[in-house]
Amino acid sequence: MWRDLKPIGRNPDSGGYRRFAWTEADAECRTWFEEQARARGLAYEVDRNGNQWAWLGDPAAGDAVVTGSHLDSVPDGGAFDGPLGVVSSFAALDELRSRNVQFSKPLAIVNFGDEEGARFGLACVGSRLAAGELTVEQAHRLRDADGVSLPEAMEAAGFDPDAIGADPERLARIGAFVELHVEQGRVLDLSGDRVGIASAIWPHGRWRFDFRGEANHAGTTRLVDRRDPMLSYAETVLAARREAQLAGAVATFGKISVEPNGVNAIPSLVRGWLDSRAADQVTLDTVVTGIERAAREYADAHGIELDVVRESFTPVVEFDHALRDELARILGTDTDLKVPVLGTGAGHDAGILSGTIPTAMLFVRNPTGVSHSPAEYAAEDDCVAGVLALADVLEGLARR
Amino acid sequence: MWRDLKPIGRNPDSGGYRRFAWTEADAECRTWFEEQARARGLAYEVDRNGNQWAWLGDPAAGDAVVTGSHLDSVPDGGAFDGPLGVVSSFAALDELRSRNVQFSKPLAIVNFGDEEGARFGLACVGSRLAAGELTVEQAHRLRDADGVSLPEAMEAAGFDPDAIGADPERLARIGAFVELHVEQGRVLDLSGDRVGIASAIWPHGRWRFDFRGEANHAGTTRLVDRRDPMLSYAETVLAARREAQLAGAVATFGKISVEPNGVNAIPSLVRGWLDSRAADQVTLDTVVTGIERAAREYADAHGIELDVVRESFTPVVEFDHALRDELARILGTDTDLKVPVLGTGAGHDAGILSGTIPTAMLFVRNPTGVSHSPAEYAAEDDCVAGVLALADVLEGLARR
Repeated sequence: MWRDLKPIGRNPDSGGYRRFAWTEADAECRTWFEEQARARGLAYEVDRNGNQWAWLGDPAAGDAVVTGSHLDSVPDGGAFDGPLGVVSSFAALDELRSRNVQFSKPLAIVNFGDEEGARFGLACVGSRLAAGELTVEQAHRLRDADGVSLPEAMEAAGFDPDAIGADPERLARIGAFVELHVEQGRVLDLSGDRVGIASAIWPHGRWRFDFRGEANHAGTTRLVDRRDPMLSYAETVLAARREAQLAGAVATFGKISVEPNGVNAIPSLVRGWLDSRAADQVTLDTVVTGIERAAREYADAHGIELDVVRESFTPVVEFDHALRDELARILGTDTDLKVPVLGTGAGHDAGILSGTIPTAMLFVRNPTGVSHSPAEYAAEDDCVAGVLALADVLEGLARR
Repeated sequence: MWRDLKPIGRNPDSGGYRRFAWTEADAECRTWFEEQARARGLAYEVDRNGNQWAWLGDPAAGDAVVTGSHLDSVPDGGAFDGPLGVVSSFAALDELRSRNVQFSKPLAIVNFGDEEGARFGLACVGSRLAAGELTVEQAHRLRDADGVSLPEAMEAAGFDPDAIGADPERLARIGAFVELHVEQGRVLDLSGDRVGIASAIWPHGRWRFDFRGEANHAGTTRLVDRRDPMLSYAETVLAARREAQLAGAVATFGKISVEPNGVNAIPSLVRGWLDSRAADQVTLDTVVTGIERAAREYADAHGIELDVVRESFTPVVEFDHALRDELARILGTDTDLKVPVLGTGAGHDAGILSGTIPTAMLFVRNPTGVSHSPAEYAAEDDCVAGVLALADVLEGLARR
């Protein structure tokens, strides 16, 4: 399975993946999914939002047990974030068939569309649309960096953008959704475990800091006459690290846009995006308030105007407690695995769906903690442990 | 004159000018120059490098007195940087004619092509080519942001890119070149003078700082596991300001490029460009060495690899002392103007040509010191004082 999927959308320079929604690389990944479904005699369907489903048993029977993840990637992303969950789902089904397990409930594997949001700037579009967390009007307004709208991109890929929207009947058929994912941190590596169960997704948000100064000649303008927004930006980057460190949270300035961005020009505008996350809402508020207060002090000192805009915010997501406990029971009694329960700072389709249906997540150890990079990695033994854990969970949920 | 020139290449949103080499706006400025030359009965010619000349008297007679500047602009530049020198040249000639001055030497007005380098990244292309400071091979390799090469752009504008190159015969005809320019600082404003004479152009250079870390997920990577190059960059920006302040020099990070530049991604690469200038070489070396040393310390502390590349460097340019003294004598004895002598941090065609022919510069007061911005400004009275000073200089040099 991995062999066919591996070369799709790979950037030969970086070794990273560029599988963006509704591109050629995305279409190839989707063809791969359909082939895997048909090869196993599963009923293949694509829902109105472009999510792919492979069914074993009658979907209309209800209380289905569903697993899966996504196949798209961030720019120069790794091989595991997303695909590991889909590949493991098919492998777990193969394992259950070799165990001759008989199911009392329908089972499905899903590939959610546009999870990373790398092209249109909004993550989890496929699951958000299905759950009604993104309206059709909002989705139709999304545009990529080249100005191509989501409807145009969907149409070019052969899909009907007017058919998208909330899909409550489809989600109502699902009794439980379990997503397996490579861990994007080092909790399992540090605890020495191969597999873990998710407790919650940290609250997180994105804030845009616009520092506005005055464009001027970098060679002739005296330092005292300058209103250089790059200085306030630099001080704020360092303040963000300090505040996050104090609070045990994370805060990152990873994206910047500068005008006019000329070597010999003092910038008129430095726009920096802050991504911050913490284990709870109060901590996150403390961190972001601290960063903003520091930024305002720096801006005032340099004659800079500062606007701070919260561009997105997702409150804490607690995964379904009953389902989480059920997974812990299955993995604790049926296997020798220790299964720690851990939080995560990353968003997932499982988090989006948790408002509508019971969801849970399994994490597979990542020895370096690196993700969203070609260096993202999980050892083969750990991947196998993940497949077996997922198979045990599906068996435990669907056979009972 | 100003009225016809004012609307060309103006960006209606910012009020700034976008007159880039070999574009439509550039062509309109060039047509304006030709019309001004012909309206005064001057002999119009374009040299092999696309510089425009308007002659009074026989160029072949030699020892010509030449004035002029450039008409192109930086992105969203002001109305005065360049055009003030060209407009003042025509106005000074009008003044001399109204004074019935008889000339013993040929006189010319010049518009040098692509002074700002806004399109192809290299400043003073027209004068560099003429002086042989830029080879044909180097010029042919220049490309703009859209990948259009200089030869392609010249050809599209109706010029022969194979004809460019050093033009020693043409420059040998010139006995003195005087460029009038709006001051790009506040020396004249602080001293209360309308017009000044240039002493020297500060040595200056551009250095590229590549901070390489490790791309990773901004939500899930613990702070201690990060190798985030944005932190070292931010510390270096602040170090640059500190070092420049200590030395009485200038240092600016105005351009940045980040990879992958995603809100939820710790960057793998932050590339920042340093522009630094000082009154003398030793001071500049001290500043840049200090910034680089600080950057290395910060990079080492964060596990960041740092490469520093000097992309360009221009040593100090001392304008011709005899010509400078002659200007001071003319303006000191023939008028009531006080004429301070001042250095500048900006490059000019006059600086490029100073290696080949005697050159001098006049600066006109700029009350805010702002340049390379729509806020660039010179008061009408000061512009008139500039024209009269230039007329006096031309009369003094060409009549003697």
